[in-house]
Amino acid sequence: MLDTRSLKLVADRLHLVDTLLDENVYADKVLTGGKVVNVITKEIYEAEIAITGEYILMVGDCSKLKGPKTEIVDVTGKYIMPGFIDAHMHFESAMLTATEFSRLSLPTGTTCLISDPHEIGNVLGKVGMKAMAEEVATLPQHVYLRVPALTPDSPGLETAGKNITSKDIPEMLSWETVTGIGETQGVTTIKFVYEHNYEVIKDTIASTVYARSIGKQVDGNIAGLFGEELAAHIICGGTDISCHETTTKEEAVEKLRYGVYVLMREGSTQYNMAQSVRAITEEKLDSRRAIIATDDMLAEDIINKGHMNDIIRRTIKEGVDPVEAIQMATINPATWLGLSQIGVLAPGKYADIAVIDGKLEDMNVSQVFLKGEKIAENKELLIDLPVYTYPDTVKQSVKREPITAENLMIASNDNKVLANCIGLIPLNNLSEKLQVELPVENGYVKSNVEDLLPVAVVGRHGQKDIGKSFVKGFDLKEGAFAETVSHDTHNLIVIGTNYEDMAVAVNRVIELQGGVVIAKGGEVVDELPLRISGLMTDELTAYELTDKMTALHEKAKEVLKCSIPAPFMHLAFLSLSTSPKWKITDKGVVDVENYRVIPSIEPIK
Amino acid sequence: MLDTRSLKLVADRLHLVDTLLDENVYADKVLTGGKVVNVITKEIYEAEIAITGEYILMVGDCSKLKGPKTEIVDVTGKYIMPGFIDAHMHFESAMLTATEFSRLSLPTGTTCLISDPHEIGNVLGKVGMKAMAEEVATLPQHVYLRVPALTPDSPGLETAGKNITSKDIPEMLSWETVTGIGETQGVTTIKFVYEHNYEVIKDTIASTVYARSIGKQVDGNIAGLFGEELAAHIICGGTDISCHETTTKEEAVEKLRYGVYVLMREGSTQYNMAQSVRAITEEKLDSRRAIIATDDMLAEDIINKGHMNDIIRRTIKEGVDPVEAIQMATINPATWLGLSQIGVLAPGKYADIAVIDGKLEDMNVSQVFLKGEKIAENKELLIDLPVYTYPDTVKQSVKREPITAENLMIASNDNKVLANCIGLIPLNNLSEKLQVELPVENGYVKSNVEDLLPVAVVGRHGQKDIGKSFVKGFDLKEGAFAETVSHDTHNLIVIGTNYEDMAVAVNRVIELQGGVVIAKGGEVVDELPLRISGLMTDELTAYELTDKMTALHEKAKEVLKCSIPAPFMHLAFLSLSTSPKWKITDKGVVDVENYRVIPSIEPIK
Repeated sequence: MLDTRSLKLVADRLHLVDTLLDENVYADKVLTGGKVVNVITKEIYEAEIAITGEYILMVGDCSKLKGPKTEIVDVTGKYIMPGFIDAHMHFESAMLTATEFSRLSLPTGTTCLISDPHEIGNVLGKVGMKAMAEEVATLPQHVYLRVPALTPDSPGLETAGKNITSKDIPEMLSWETVTGIGETQGVTTIKFVYEHNYEVIKDTIASTVYARSIGKQVDGNIAGLFGEELAAHIICGGTDISCHETTTKEEAVEKLRYGVYVLMREGSTQYNMAQSVRAITEEKLDSRRAIIATDDMLAEDIINKGHMNDIIRRTIKEGVDPVEAIQMATINPATWLGLSQIGVLAPGKYADIAVIDGKLEDMNVSQVFLKGEKIAENKELLIDLPVYTYPDTVKQSVKREPITAENLMIASNDNKVLANCIGLIPLNNLSEKLQVELPVENGYVKSNVEDLLPVAVVGRHGQKDIGKSFVKGFDLKEGAFAETVSHDTHNLIVIGTNYEDMAVAVNRVIELQGGVVIAKGGEVVDELPLRISGLMTDELTAYELTDKMTALHEKAKEVLKCSIPAPFMHLAFLSLSTSPKWKITDKGVVDVENYRVIPSIEPIK
Repeated sequence: MLDTRSLKLVADRLHLVDTLLDENVYADKVLTGGKVVNVITKEIYEAEIAITGEYILMVGDCSKLKGPKTEIVDVTGKYIMPGFIDAHMHFESAMLTATEFSRLSLPTGTTCLISDPHEIGNVLGKVGMKAMAEEVATLPQHVYLRVPALTPDSPGLETAGKNITSKDIPEMLSWETVTGIGETQGVTTIKFVYEHNYEVIKDTIASTVYARSIGKQVDGNIAGLFGEELAAHIICGGTDISCHETTTKEEAVEKLRYGVYVLMREGSTQYNMAQSVRAITEEKLDSRRAIIATDDMLAEDIINKGHMNDIIRRTIKEGVDPVEAIQMATINPATWLGLSQIGVLAPGKYADIAVIDGKLEDMNVSQVFLKGEKIAENKELLIDLPVYTYPDTVKQSVKREPITAENLMIASNDNKVLANCIGLIPLNNLSEKLQVELPVENGYVKSNVEDLLPVAVVGRHGQKDIGKSFVKGFDLKEGAFAETVSHDTHNLIVIGTNYEDMAVAVNRVIELQGGVVIAKGGEVVDELPLRISGLMTDELTAYELTDKMTALHEKAKEVLKCSIPAPFMHLAFLSLSTSPKWKITDKGVVDVENYRVIPSIEPIK
């Protein structure tokens, strides 16, 4: 009846009971003098914590559990609380492997990560996600994955490396570290999808019903929906879904009322917590389904500011009671995720503990215990992490022969055309529709509008397709840059002031088998290889990566004279086919609201 | 990948999405004008509720969902809230089948019952519990069972009809309507059990680890434990257990701090909510793990006062915010039980709705919707319930030949003995130790102490054993009464002023194959057959049963001159071997704290 893991748990629990009831058996260690933040009762009080093996024995007066060999950890005057949970994030956003992300986040007190591998999933399908699932299984941190129900997000409008549908769900959900279905981006714009691709609705429901039937959860993705559309998305996910795409108080109120676990996002690129949390601070709603999560975190920010401890700090600054803010990163996500062995400090739970020095609201983590072991002190990791090597199948993900500059150009037999172009909206995933009359020279369309630059998405999953258009808003003056980070199918996207540099950049990315390349004057200016599926580095530490990204941003600014912040991120989101209005994929210009590919150029009537 | 039930759910959800997004498809019904009690956000606001089939479509402005055939249900000015959950109860306590209990409780707004069948389980083992599991599966109400990890509670100290251990758990947990392990009474007195019957600790942990591994929960039973013992009990249950045995504020505070779901008990026989809930009203603890539940409810009380609506009413009277009190009977238990489809009013959830007329705090339920259908109005059930017939194996549960008066007497060759007797504590499961010197006449011990009466537990599970002693505190003047309700193994317990009437009562109970019998002067005075395992009636309605119980209580008072209230209940708990100090089972007098059977009489030193 019991498998090996369960038999070990029985033995562990018997040992805990022995320690509690046999007066000759003592705890391994006792934390004394601390102020316990009890996230169950929403209290702070002085108490000791006794630990045996990986587990908490008791929180309270532990004097009877202290024996001659018990290690006494003096935390007098410090706050002690459960380790933090980041309930929704992507390793790919940090361009780091799970192991490297773990190395960075553990010393900040984050003891559990819930990562959605839909980026590597779009590139490599099950092969890529299974490798990541295997990697996270090697880590001491509690790390779980949430697999996509659908890749690509918009079948017919873009090409992924593999097509994931409900047929793949049973296998993926059977992997040890997979706890549910990730963000259901396929039904974000549910009304458009309902009208244009009903099959996606059916298939999503089949996947989520199956997931629920085996006790797994589903993350939603309900950007900007209200009323009937919000309800329909919730029902597609099987109810009790999460959503990390909430930007206003009104949205947060409506989603909480509808039973959604609102993951108030606060990461490196999107700052939605302050608005969302007004549902709690101003409208005084019950906060049990309010959760804070990062979605996308850059290594640089974790190094400089912290991870969930910083997000809690910011949440407190918005007027949330400190213990309530801590609940949002501990018991609330643990409850939603069904992770009953973490998120609280109570008998029998994993001894995952963050120790805070100084003022509670400053959230300065000085020590971290993971499964009973002190694994970090003063921001330094005290343990070695296992080395996981990704298989070659994951490192050879750019399936494309070199291209020429001509391949990127838009041919026409007319003298002038009406070009369907994209207007960039800074610091936003959304974009504008932009129709411009452009001349044709030597058989190719040419921009004569200031800052309207060629952009292309070069298929890199074995397909020959290249989507081509023009984009306004990058304020790029010279050269080109290309990258395999290009949401969500991660084909090879490139922008430039001239097609020659664009081709140089693209071909170098192909040669690197993924990464970011800046080119100018026919030469490569700088590059960052991202060999793991074209999204993550397999050679740089988080610190080295941060330096490299700083260098790339400097080159973009100084060599290419690109004035907008985060140009690589902006380019990467230009292909996100689920956020209106016009985007570009390997299939061409996508009219998101009408769920269709439109021609890059049209005859002038 | 999907079974039949899941395929139906996919179809249902697609239809819900169609109704929400296709402007030519409308809701089946819309409740208009009501004040919604949102237990997720802890708010009350005016909103409509649209329903299609068994499910809620939306709560809010449902004007677009009203079509020409939509039924409009005007609930103007009334409060609408989720149907109530009784998170811990026993059908056996009401002496009613699940079907009859359902008939009574549905019109009060209770739409979900969690019943622990350990009474019928003690009598008939899996045969009895499986029959009950099959019965509840026929009911429209959401009814689930929690099976015992151990019968009898105290192996070696008493005899059950069947011995349940961890070996039986996988089979029982596989039954469709079983959602977990019931109250773990076997480890209530955990320190005594640890010292005297370690095997029970091991076996309980094996059961609970297995249950958790397949996503089921475990109910605890932690009467009066603190500190190390409380922690040990929690760990035996696998953490996140419930407990319905909390009698003081201090206990409630400690259990909540330790992560226990505190089921504040308020039923027909024990009134613990008022004390327990002070943890919320006075100590201001977070109430998310506070739940109200009845444990034992008599039909009479439901008929006269109500069920969970009355418990909520009482909870509000103790100073709890009304919406918070309603949370304790809706979202809080649904969260703990993992019943994600009930307990809140939100899109995609079952449309289980209680409509309250008048003041919220009066909790007068005027209409009840179950799975979208109006099933009760003004306390009348509007639907027929299916008829379930228990198999004969369940109705032939008294395995005993008739006895003689002598069989009940305590023989001795001495002139005087020291008798180990029991002191009744009125309205309490606990009892006192009572040692009395008694004379021996004609070879049998005889009481010469006022109100010290013979008591016996006659084995009825095939064993020959009869446990014999004396009890003080019943204030019985004539005759005898006997019953097959006798916690927790439900052997045949009898008390009387003389052994002849005791034998008459016992033999009539045997003849009836279970029930309650009053005898006097060698004749049966009155009787209640309880043929379903000797615990529940298979022939009386709840109303008839109530009348019969009233008659029996009157006879006990008037014919037998028994002055204490609820004498049958007091007798039934005299054999509960898990509550200190001295009890009586078929094995004899049980010294609970030392986990042993002691002799009924001892030589005088």
